[in-house]
Amino acid sequence: MRIFNFSPGPAVMPLPVLEKAAKELVSYGDSGMSVMEMSHRGKAYMEIQSAAESLLRGLMNIPQNYKVLFMQGGATQQFSAVPLNLCVNGKADYIVTGSFAKKAAQEAQRYIKVNVAASSEDGNFTYIPDEFNLSANADYVHYTANNTIYGTRFASVPKTGGVPLVTDMSSSILSEVFDISKFALIYAGAQKNIAPAGVTIVILREELIGHALPVTPHMLNYKTHADEDSLHNTPPCYSIYMMKLVLEWLKEQGGVPALQKMNEEKAKLLYDQIDESKIFSNPVAPRDRSLMNVIFVTGNENLDKKFVKEAAAAGLSTLAGHRSVGGMRASIYNAMPLEGVKALVGFMKKFETENK
Amino acid sequence: MRIFNFSPGPAVMPLPVLEKAAKELVSYGDSGMSVMEMSHRGKAYMEIQSAAESLLRGLMNIPQNYKVLFMQGGATQQFSAVPLNLCVNGKADYIVTGSFAKKAAQEAQRYIKVNVAASSEDGNFTYIPDEFNLSANADYVHYTANNTIYGTRFASVPKTGGVPLVTDMSSSILSEVFDISKFALIYAGAQKNIAPAGVTIVILREELIGHALPVTPHMLNYKTHADEDSLHNTPPCYSIYMMKLVLEWLKEQGGVPALQKMNEEKAKLLYDQIDESKIFSNPVAPRDRSLMNVIFVTGNENLDKKFVKEAAAAGLSTLAGHRSVGGMRASIYNAMPLEGVKALVGFMKKFETENK
Repeated sequence: MRIFNFSPGPAVMPLPVLEKAAKELVSYGDSGMSVMEMSHRGKAYMEIQSAAESLLRGLMNIPQNYKVLFMQGGATQQFSAVPLNLCVNGKADYIVTGSFAKKAAQEAQRYIKVNVAASSEDGNFTYIPDEFNLSANADYVHYTANNTIYGTRFASVPKTGGVPLVTDMSSSILSEVFDISKFALIYAGAQKNIAPAGVTIVILREELIGHALPVTPHMLNYKTHADEDSLHNTPPCYSIYMMKLVLEWLKEQGGVPALQKMNEEKAKLLYDQIDESKIFSNPVAPRDRSLMNVIFVTGNENLDKKFVKEAAAAGLSTLAGHRSVGGMRASIYNAMPLEGVKALVGFMKKFETENK
Repeated sequence: MRIFNFSPGPAVMPLPVLEKAAKELVSYGDSGMSVMEMSHRGKAYMEIQSAAESLLRGLMNIPQNYKVLFMQGGATQQFSAVPLNLCVNGKADYIVTGSFAKKAAQEAQRYIKVNVAASSEDGNFTYIPDEFNLSANADYVHYTANNTIYGTRFASVPKTGGVPLVTDMSSSILSEVFDISKFALIYAGAQKNIAPAGVTIVILREELIGHALPVTPHMLNYKTHADEDSLHNTPPCYSIYMMKLVLEWLKEQGGVPALQKMNEEKAKLLYDQIDESKIFSNPVAPRDRSLMNVIFVTGNENLDKKFVKEAAAAGLSTLAGHRSVGGMRASIYNAMPLEGVKALVGFMKKFETENK
């Protein structure tokens, strides 16, 4: 029996992808072995990794002068890798819109001078600032495209006046159309919209490679991975294989534009229900509301707990909000079907009737 | 159809483990979701990770004053993490017995003073040195327990006179009994004897934690992972789940002593066949021969290629030696069944008759 899983990450994956993976887990194609057992230098596996990269390039429309790297360590490891690799003048601007954005800035500060160009911490990260105090000669501007914990997102890409733009896209990559040419570097842990945890995607302009600080560990240097097509050492092969299956599925659905349309429909259903409700509310400024992570609270901690518990019993799982926000959070990534959101909306209506 | 897979890593996994994983891939127990989809902060996943650690502690008899960490980036990332974390006096001794040992020393040299205490590079790494030129006040001595590429291993643990001993155990962990108390730190990429690629195991004495150099990236600092039970950020959950299944299987087989006996039997079968052969030979000093990676060459490149090709056609896969050694290599990790080795020995006999 499958349930509807609203986990913020690792998160729901497409059922046909899981079914396919299960079917070929013991023996992949005519290889006579599992993908988990394949040498990463062998033809069968290298074809999988190469297909995953091609699919990603096609789906995101990644220009030719960008490299795609498959790394490890999650977005958190990129918090170090970004300043270590991109630092030429020794300073960068950070837009702080949530816990992860703040952690990224704190880690960067260990290597370079960080200017907080804007922060919404004063409002408990319930909004996205629209004015940025950018510094002169910054190596880059860093922002978090979607804030998983606070349920906010940048509705448009920040303008930096030509300064390279770096974004943590972990919770919105492939969920809406982005013009990649606006970015110098995009990174994303895979475990929300792409694949099981274990692989980190880095997409960056080629000219940014090769300028790492001398203290950069070899495995955090983008050049190490770019020079050897992400096969410098054993990559997280099975996660990359699962990514390939997810990207094939995504293509079958009509690609990112079709998914974006579906994601907007799913989010609207939920936000409309919240806005019509007399017991639920969403603290986020409407124009900054996330399409991926929908926050709702009753204002009564016990009632929130009751909701989460009864929802779980009804097959709607992992709806508790992050401890720093409280209440509920429904994460509705690409793989969450419309029927899952409809089931949640139905449950919210029923709960409201029973608890008003 | 399954074949016998002699890949050096990622490598063969136990068939019952793969079958179990396939069966519960779409929905784990009564959770209604795949392990790949579970929040790493949820009860179901945390129980898996905790069970994996307990099993590892039991099977390796890890003392209480050691921490077990699940990290990412493979052994290669540990080449940086070890000197960054263990450096107090700023120098360390490295015993260089293969390419990976050499890479570890080279990476350490970027952060600390490295003394090569011994090297077998003069003999193309076909033997293990038995005298070490240890330096005074070294922070640690580093060695590679088993050399995957060259088919050698340390038959006994090097004596360091009290200096902390660090080992890369990627290709021999859990294949033979080690007295953990002899080591300060053990690290191992999982993709040979433990799990699919993506998780790195670090076992270290607690007192070594907390002395990292200031330039250490947060994710490479052992303290980051020790303080949060390897849940600082999203771990490679599915690889850790697979590790748990492999460790359960290993326990059912009778644990490490039973596996060691089986590994010795498998290796003896192969080495005996090579030593009796008139066309195959093994370049390694007999006392230093690996139990995990068995090298054999004909001395004729074309004949080697013919062997690899015909073996593959007979369902004996991935037997080509590493490009720096040539010839053949049969990697016979824990999960390679005795019948696989018997099939290989049978094929070698047949090939010799046909090609003498």
